[in-house]
Amino acid sequence: MENHVLVIHCPDAKGLIARISAVVFRNNLNILAMKEFVEEETNTFFMRSELSGNLQSALLLQELRQELGKEAYIVINPKQKKDIVVLCTKEHHCLADLLTRHHFGSLHARILAVIGNYEYLQDITQRFEIPYLYISHEHKDKFQFEQELIQAILPFKPDYLVLAKFMRILSPEFVARFENKIINIHHSFLPAFIGANPYKQAYERGVKLIGATAHMVNNQLDEGPIITQQVRAVNHSMKLKEMIDAGHEVEVSVLSHALQLVLEDRVFVSGNKTIILE
Amino acid sequence: MENHVLVIHCPDAKGLIARISAVVFRNNLNILAMKEFVEEETNTFFMRSELSGNLQSALLLQELRQELGKEAYIVINPKQKKDIVVLCTKEHHCLADLLTRHHFGSLHARILAVIGNYEYLQDITQRFEIPYLYISHEHKDKFQFEQELIQAILPFKPDYLVLAKFMRILSPEFVARFENKIINIHHSFLPAFIGANPYKQAYERGVKLIGATAHMVNNQLDEGPIITQQVRAVNHSMKLKEMIDAGHEVEVSVLSHALQLVLEDRVFVSGNKTIILE
Amino acid sequence: MENHVLVIHCPDAKGLIARISAVVFRNNLNILAMKEFVEEETNTFFMRSELSGNLQSALLLQELRQELGKEAYIVINPKQKKDIVVLCTKEHHCLADLLTRHHFGSLHARILAVIGNYEYLQDITQRFEIPYLYISHEHKDKFQFEQELIQAILPFKPDYLVLAKFMRILSPEFVARFENKIINIHHSFLPAFIGANPYKQAYERGVKLIGATAHMVNNQLDEGPIITQQVRAVNHSMKLKEMIDAGHEVEVSVLSHALQLVLEDRVFVSGNKTIILE
Amino acid sequence: MENHVLVIHCPDAKGLIARISAVVFRNNLNILAMKEFVEEETNTFFMRSELSGNLQSALLLQELRQELGKEAYIVINPKQKKDIVVLCTKEHHCLADLLTRHHFGSLHARILAVIGNYEYLQDITQRFEIPYLYISHEHKDKFQFEQELIQAILPFKPDYLVLAKFMRILSPEFVARFENKIINIHHSFLPAFIGANPYKQAYERGVKLIGATAHMVNNQLDEGPIITQQVRAVNHSMKLKEMIDAGHEVEVSVLSHALQLVLEDRVFVSGNKTIILE
Repeated sequence: MENHVLVIHCPDAKGLIARISAVVFRNNLNILAMKEFVEEETNTFFMRSELSGNLQSALLLQELRQELGKEAYIVINPKQKKDIVVLCTKEHHCLADLLTRHHFGSLHARILAVIGNYEYLQDITQRFEIPYLYISHEHKDKFQFEQELIQAILPFKPDYLVLAKFMRILSPEFVARFENKIINIHHSFLPAFIGANPYKQAYERGVKLIGATAHMVNNQLDEGPIITQQVRAVNHSMKLKEMIDAGHEVEVSVLSHALQLVLEDRVFVSGNKTIILE
Repeated sequence: MENHVLVIHCPDAKGLIARISAVVFRNNLNILAMKEFVEEETNTFFMRSELSGNLQSALLLQELRQELGKEAYIVINPKQKKDIVVLCTKEHHCLADLLTRHHFGSLHARILAVIGNYEYLQDITQRFEIPYLYISHEHKDKFQFEQELIQAILPFKPDYLVLAKFMRILSPEFVARFENKIINIHHSFLPAFIGANPYKQAYERGVKLIGATAHMVNNQLDEGPIITQQVRAVNHSMKLKEMIDAGHEVEVSVLSHALQLVLEDRVFVSGNKTIILE
Repeated sequence: MENHVLVIHCPDAKGLIARISAVVFRNNLNILAMKEFVEEETNTFFMRSELSGNLQSALLLQELRQELGKEAYIVINPKQKKDIVVLCTKEHHCLADLLTRHHFGSLHARILAVIGNYEYLQDITQRFEIPYLYISHEHKDKFQFEQELIQAILPFKPDYLVLAKFMRILSPEFVARFENKIINIHHSFLPAFIGANPYKQAYERGVKLIGATAHMVNNQLDEGPIITQQVRAVNHSMKLKEMIDAGHEVEVSVLSHALQLVLEDRVFVSGNKTIILE
Repeated sequence: MENHVLVIHCPDAKGLIARISAVVFRNNLNILAMKEFVEEETNTFFMRSELSGNLQSALLLQELRQELGKEAYIVINPKQKKDIVVLCTKEHHCLADLLTRHHFGSLHARILAVIGNYEYLQDITQRFEIPYLYISHEHKDKFQFEQELIQAILPFKPDYLVLAKFMRILSPEFVARFENKIINIHHSFLPAFIGANPYKQAYERGVKLIGATAHMVNNQLDEGPIITQQVRAVNHSMKLKEMIDAGHEVEVSVLSHALQLVLEDRVFVSGNKTIILE
């Protein structure tokens, strides 16, 4: 008998856990682990529980719905293996990591397709028998390019879009279609560097740490609720190329960790920040 | 109105959270954050909640006691400032950190006294107006020495004993008197080095990381449930003395973090391991 | 017989190490460790060596000067214990750490005085028998305030000024007087937050890492060649106050590490970056 | 014009750097970076330099040999792309990482072959068009098994053997044939756990960090000079399986870093420790 996962967020109210856990108890289920957090600024309740016992999913959902009302977001036993579509451009490091994890069953997701705006990454994708869709952005305006992306994506009905170093800025309209369903990764520095070629700026400034940030995409490419961040030490003796390599290593590690959190239904978006119930 | 903390552990049973949270609700309190964990191996339930609302402590305790039975460990609003007694020997690094944190009110504890088996650390302790009790172990057997320690400690009724590099091995009898109330810090290496002068062994072996472990003391000095661990990078160019310095830095940091966890009632001991509800 | 340190930087030229090491050899000294780096962008040579043998300092310097010319920066056996003056405002965390390290002889520097623009930190400073100079900035323009600082500092002839959370922006004129001799610490975030109350901004943005940067001060407070950086993990459940506390912990650790590097003559400034010969 | 690398180790003597750098200068080469270390315990000199200029390799080697004698280990411009043979058993994580890095040209080595004592990893290896040799250990004594390994390895003339989770203990005779040429990775814990199933022991002990160590193999599997080590945080809520997964992540990262150091000729073995000239 496997454990079940129950995920809820809704406006907070006194007695919420009492009411939820009473329903769970009436359904003859045991709560093995519960993480709960109330965001006081927004008066929102977030919960992730692991349950054991003989689950009758429809019944539990109905009773929780009755108890919590229409506004509540309730998911019982979210899909163990989410469906994802990966978007990429030229850089292979994040994609290759996703493909090997997928291949060996440690990704906790099914990669339905990889879409690239160049042909560079077709070969590696096909080595793992994943469909590769090449959709160039050239000679198209953003609207037309994104329409082609959407037409390519929709048939797969993915749970998440993963931008594995996809280097096109997405329009607010595109993003709105996949709200809180797009995960992006980008390099991060202290201090931040605005403008072109941030690695070159970081190199010239002699930073001692470079990092990466994985985040949900809202209406700007490198903004949006942060899921996780990591850094790595660099030093004066590293050439620009070596600093970029180090940055890629962090990006792979951060994207992999962020995906794990998202795919295990531990990430909740609230405004421009995330609640992570680990 | 401040938040309240409710800490419970007891044998697990179906419906436990429902029953606890119903009591909390009847007492007109709101659950702001809840961390719960069931250790399946021992069938034990651990919970730490933060509550808001107008608390009537005695009433809530009585109702929870009724609901959960005598076996349950229930603490409502554990002391914000625990009372601690610090034991030390010659090394100052951990003690000095505790004293300055205490002085500036960031320790979340009251240091009632420092007891040392040497006089070395009397000066720094008294600079911060904390009583220093010098109890030498010399010319005494362990039983007599520990009797003197106990006589010195008891009047302070401390919530915790902190071994800040106290270099005497305590007898099982002593430890039993302060069960799960003694916190120790020691250096740790990968691989571990048995026997005398582990830093020298680590130096000679060329380890690239050295660490420290903070743990609850049970019946052996460097064993017992681990609270937290950290490491720091070292390299071939460091002299033995520099490796020891680096080790001390980690010890200070680990002890400080462990104490914060303990003093905020986030550490639960179960057999030889800890559950940390952060 | 102790080891000696030889520090050189000068325009690069072919055969430089050959010429330097030939001089060292003629002086009957052995090179135990050498770190050397040529910054190709500026064609500058940086070197730090540890020597053993019977050193005749004046002779060695004279011969090296002859070999390398007037432009070369040459220091033989830099002071083991540098003299520093610490500037602070209200926050105690960095200052208290410096004072305890100093007290126990592990700072590798003499703190000659602490200067504060408030009286808050007088008590802790005097507990360690270090002179505290209270120089308020109130009712003075920046020029007048800085003149008073300079008059207070100059008699101590410090090797370095350490800004241990000194919250006044120094003028370019002040900074120019102590070129590459002022060390500052400030919090750092990914992304960076411009404007007032960056911790609040970081909290609202839900960052997962907060960091600190220690740097040499040139003509802007939070810019200048970076010496070292560290980060610490934070999460959604931390209150603003807890995030600030975590930030302070990193600041203490980063300032301490930066000072160690500077005081051991391992930090070289080149334009707006540092070369660290560890 | 590319930079050159010069690697030397030999018994230490006064004037060594003077003599080496004089030879380099006479050969009209410039020293861009030099890392040098004298291990006082063994009186051994280690050096790694990067040179620029028009190199005549044979001439430089001859002059250095004349200057330093027969005992000196001198390598000029070590192979940019070392040849490696990878040995594996059942676990894919380290191998898959090596294969993808190799495929995209970021490994700084040529993988000539993968040898496995099971067939599990044949598929992934062949997807990247690398020969896979299946050599079972079953129904053979260690001598016979190792003879087959040696016969399979020798034709490739590899510079290094990489044990990517190869789970057979190698005999001293096998190891002696590839002295300082075998790189191994294994999990590491604080404290160390002796005996079977260390992850289970670590889980039961509630450790808060798990790590991995990459090392040169001498005559015992999990001993030998340490190249690099890393750790990752774990906690009570992780199942044994999750702790093992976390351990695998560290192993991948540590092996990758260790290989980079080895392949860039930065790792020197001295007795049972390493000197890393980064």
